[in-house]
Amino acid sequence: MTHSLPFVLAAALALAPIPADSAPPATPAALIASSPASAWTNIPAEDLIVMTIEGGAQIIVQFAPAMAPRHVANIRMLAQAHWWDGTSINRVQDNYVAQWGDATEKKPLPAGLLQTSAADYTVPLANRRLHITSLPYPDAYAPKTGFVAGWPVAMDGDAVWLPHCYGYVGVGRNLSPDAGTGAELYAVIGQAPRQLDRNIAVVGRVIDGMAHLSSLPRGSGELGFYTGSERPVPIVSVRLASDLPAAQQPHFQQMDTTSPIFSEYLRLRANRKDDFYERPAGGVDLCNAPVPVRPRP
Amino acid sequence: MTHSLPFVLAAALALAPIPADSAPPATPAALIASSPASAWTNIPAEDLIVMTIEGGAQIIVQFAPAMAPRHVANIRMLAQAHWWDGTSINRVQDNYVAQWGDATEKKPLPAGLLQTSAADYTVPLANRRLHITSLPYPDAYAPKTGFVAGWPVAMDGDAVWLPHCYGYVGVGRNLSPDAGTGAELYAVIGQAPRQLDRNIAVVGRVIDGMAHLSSLPRGSGELGFYTGSERPVPIVSVRLASDLPAAQQPHFQQMDTTSPIFSEYLRLRANRKDDFYERPAGGVDLCNAPVPVRPRP
Repeated sequence: MTHSLPFVLAAALALAPIPADSAPPATPAALIASSPASAWTNIPAEDLIVMTIEGGAQIIVQFAPAMAPRHVANIRMLAQAHWWDGTSINRVQDNYVAQWGDATEKKPLPAGLLQTSAADYTVPLANRRLHITSLPYPDAYAPKTGFVAGWPVAMDGDAVWLPHCYGYVGVGRNLSPDAGTGAELYAVIGQAPRQLDRNIAVVGRVIDGMAHLSSLPRGSGELGFYTGSERPVPIVSVRLASDLPAAQQPHFQQMDTTSPIFSEYLRLRANRKDDFYERPAGGVDLCNAPVPVRPRP
Repeated sequence: MTHSLPFVLAAALALAPIPADSAPPATPAALIASSPASAWTNIPAEDLIVMTIEGGAQIIVQFAPAMAPRHVANIRMLAQAHWWDGTSINRVQDNYVAQWGDATEKKPLPAGLLQTSAADYTVPLANRRLHITSLPYPDAYAPKTGFVAGWPVAMDGDAVWLPHCYGYVGVGRNLSPDAGTGAELYAVIGQAPRQLDRNIAVVGRVIDGMAHLSSLPRGSGELGFYTGSERPVPIVSVRLASDLPAAQQPHFQQMDTTSPIFSEYLRLRANRKDDFYERPAGGVDLCNAPVPVRPRP
């Protein structure tokens, strides 16, 4: 989830700085590569779903139960009911979202899904003690931004919420007061549509296989829905990782956003200065400092 | 170039507000649809290149000669020399860039290309009278942002520069002091990598056919270069639009960023409130208020 540079020559990579043990790594990628095991936290299998699409490609989504408890509870129920099996990715709108679910809108939902409302779009700060690693740069969409328990957050005096960043997953809905069940999901495939924050539930992020969504043909119908001869991408199965046989369970870690290494990562993301970067920006956008995620070593 | 909403139902479109003649349009899309001809400016054919790739798909890029005069002069020379014919799109890195040019790095450049330097990454404000439509929202990368002559800009007290927004085109380079000739170009296909601003030349934007770049398979090599069995996408031809036969010349318009309609567009982008949006953000990012571009009616 880190970015590299638009070098002309792949060969120019050979010129990239290699940090001496005595010197601090000069790039976010080098910092991540040299980070101690203590800087990483295992992601629980019950927070992951594995979506297998036609052809066998897999997309793994991590959910944030603490940030969207009711929607995530529904998503777990839907996965355990195998509800998405046989549905499809049926909308891909350039620089916006790839969306999946039941294109017929007629498939019955499992019993027991929780009611949701706009109150589920944010987490109240009242009586909460959140360890917030703040991002000290201005944001066009919120008074404050930062990171809580491995997730980027925007916040005001009253509440905290997940932002619509690249690869982040939200819950499609109809017009308010509908707040979505979690059956229709989308992933952001372009510039962060932060105007959707607090208008729709953000529930997680794609942590593996993102390119299987972002490189799909765009739909030519209204809102990027596939239409005419365009074929939705069949979803073979969606499983909660904790329900998979042990041998098939994916194991990922996220960087501990309370760790000193993560703070140094933010500083380096905001102040790129190395063989390639001559002029540090002195800031970084909330959606341009992705929380490092890696397969468990 | 406007965004739509992640509705669950395409049918929900029918519920979208239809502004009465007496009422101001409630959405950016409706505002654009109802805008008078006077709000639009024709884009000169000499500022456009038409890139035709294998299979016949075309990508049209608009250049900003006033913002990057030396690089754009080189790009015109390269197009007129048909230099890109037979080259390829050889790098596609998810959430970053799609890059094209001569993968062999050995193709001789035409004579007469201008020397470039880091001084070409910005336009000095000294002795300039730019009509700047400012964007009154904070930015993590620059003290001020706004729009000049149809282009988004970031600025400090001394200079103005084009930002790396989605669909924007930059000039690949080697390590500094190399500032790139313009022969190696890339388009941003993900979250705006604004850390590249003032470290590399931004020269224009894709105004048509963006999906032909953004939906390409990602490369599995370092930095997203195609490798092994992955095949670069052959570029059939790149032509300056003004050199095409009249019947083949594309005709586009951009919204006049000094027009009252554009200011209203910015206000609406920053304050989405309609049947779908319940909670206006009260701000919008420079890269999330794309200057409207349309085919000439």
